[in-house]
Order: sequence, then C-alpha cells, then structure tokens
Amino acid sequence: DDLPAMDNAETRRGQPSCHRRFGEAAAILVGDALLTRAFEVLSADGMPNTLAILRTLGQAGGTAGLIGGQVLDLECGMRNGECGIKELEEVARRKTAALITAAVVTGGLSAGASAQDLTRLRRYGERVGLAFQLMDDLHDRDGLAGLRGEAAVRRQAARLLEHAAQELVPFGRRAWLLRELADWLSRT
Amino acid sequence: DDLPAMDNAETRRGQPSCHRRFGEAAAILVGDALLTRAFEVLSADGMPNTLAILRTLGQAGGTAGLIGGQVLDLECGMRNGECGIKELEEVARRKTAALITAAVVTGGLSAGASAQDLTRLRRYGERVGLAFQLMDDLHDRDGLAGLRGEAAVRRQAARLLEHAAQELVPFGRRAWLLRELADWLSRT
Repeated sequence: DDLPAMDNAETRRGQPSCHRRFGEAAAILVGDALLTRAFEVLSADGMPNTLAILRTLGQAGGTAGLIGGQVLDLECGMRNGECGIKELEEVARRKTAALITAAVVTGGLSAGASAQDLTRLRRYGERVGLAFQLMDDLHDRDGLAGLRGEAAVRRQAARLLEHAAQELVPFGRRAWLLRELADWLSRT
Repeated sequence: DDLPAMDNAETRRGQPSCHRRFGEAAAILVGDALLTRAFEVLSADGMPNTLAILRTLGQAGGTAGLIGGQVLDLECGMRNGECGIKELEEVARRKTAALITAAVVTGGLSAGASAQDLTRLRRYGERVGLAFQLMDDLHDRDGLAGLRGEAAVRRQAARLLEHAAQELVPFGRRAWLLRELADWLSRT
C-alpha cells in the first residue's frame, strides 16, 4: 500500500514502513493515536513540571515545529529540488532539531533544572539536532549535503557539535550522556 | 484531491472537505496539528484539574475512543455493509459518544465537579452521544437506522435522551444548557 501524500518511503530504519505493512489508513491513524497517547501518558500524575513538559512537546510537535517543518519539506519536494539552503536548514531545524531539543529540555524539566540550565540544554539540542540532520544528509548524499558539498557540510556539523559541547561544560560529569551523543555524531 | 484512505467525503457540514480544498497532505497534517494544538492549549497554566482534563481528552481521542472507533468504522466499510448492529453501536459509542462525553466531563472537571457529579455527566454524555448518532443516521438513512428501521431507532433514541435527562435532575437549573441539548435532539 502507498502513502503518496507523504514521502511514501518503502522502509524506515531497515523495516517495512507502516503504510507498506499495514496500509495507508492504519499509518495515518497510528500517527494520530501515538500523538494522542504521548500527551495522555505525560498527563499522568506525579511528575514535576508536567504542564511545562506538555507545552514543550506541543510546541515542538506542532505547526511551529515538526508539523510546520513537514509542510515546508513537502513544499520543497513539490518544487523538485528548487529549495534553497535557507529552506532546507529551516526544515532541519523544525523537524529534527525541534524534536531532539524537546527531548533534551523535557529531561531537564523533569529533573527540575533551572531556567539557565534549560537554556543551555535548549542550545545544545538545537545544535546537535541540526548537526544530526547534516550528517544524515551526508550519508544519503541529499538535502543540504547535495547543495553545499560534503566538505562544507562536515565543517558546519563539526562547528555545531563543538558549540553544543560547550553548553554542557557547566554541568560537569552529569552531562556525560549528552556529551557522548555529540562525540558519537562527530565521529560518524 | 482525494483522501481515499478515510471516507473521502466531498463536503463537511456543507463546506468542501479539507482534502478537497487543500489536498491530501494538508488534510493529514492539519489533523496532526490540531490534535497537538489541543493538548498544548490545555496545558496552559491556571485551570483547575488540568491533568485530569488532559487525560480525559487523551482517552476519548485515542485508541479506546475516537481513533479506535474510526478503525472499526473503516473495517466495516471494507466489508461493504457486513457490519452488525453491535459493531455499528460500538463505532457510534467510540466516535460520537466518546467525544461528546469528553466535552461534557471536561466542563465538569474545570468547574471542580464532585466524583458523583462527574459520573452523572459521563452517563449523560454517553446517552446523548449515542442518541445523536442515531438521529444523524436517521437523517442520512444509513448505519443503524438502515439496519433496524426508523421506528425502532427513534424509540431507542427517545429512551436514551430520557435517561440522559434523568442524570441532570440533581443539578437543577444549573444544567439548563445540557437539558436543552437533549430536548433539541429529541425534536429533530
């Protein structure tokens, strides 16, 4: 079965995509169901900062973030590669970076991080998220890597990851996992 | 543009449907965006019982409610009318009644209603919701009305609305709006 309105990919991470395996209707509805379920799970009592976490996820997933990025991405696709560097960076920021940032910031919120630490986590997430998309494009030889060339994109990703790591300095050893993620990305 | 994976309706309430007017991709993504936005808006600070309201909406909208009902509905459609009365009632309960119930119960939650009053509001919503779907089917001459005949469906709807109104008795005049909704439905 096809899902021509979206990217219609045959596989996701080596597995048959949901629409291919279970049909277009199931793929659309599972997306709606998982979105709904995420907010329902997060609404369970007992977590600190639950409302701030919910708002962070809503903003990252909504029209200002992921869904808006997907609209831009589809518009780029419809113009057959007539997308500029600025637009592709905007797509990467809103799709990949917004979700990675939300994952990092909501972790901080649930641990009761200060406003200053949340800002650091947000900056880290934005930089690592954009770097992740650049490395992904390099592997697939499309998107920004196709437009700007491998060397320039590698340099930009390295700079982003360096700046991301700097945001972690005040956390000391507590940020080892986030530091390893940035290190791993810079080695891929 | 078409949305063949869902009902592919040309109009909604007399207006061109979203997929017809803006295309299939926009229709799918607007659904995701409005779902996300609903939870984001409800996560704003300052409302009493916000977490309970979010959970209520999540349960009503998710696989146990609206989305699960839509899956059943599509399965019925794929079997070309081979759906029994029980299945059609289950679809009506999970699609129409679950959302109407959530609207009524979250109103009660935001007003700080007691557990007993919330139970009454839930029962009212379930009955009015199912009655609404029955009356809607009667107008369209399909679904349960087609299977069971107009007279039987009208009797069932009248009984549901009567029981719904009984749940409102303890609220006295405060429930005038909910009572009018049930009255209006019984007159249509």
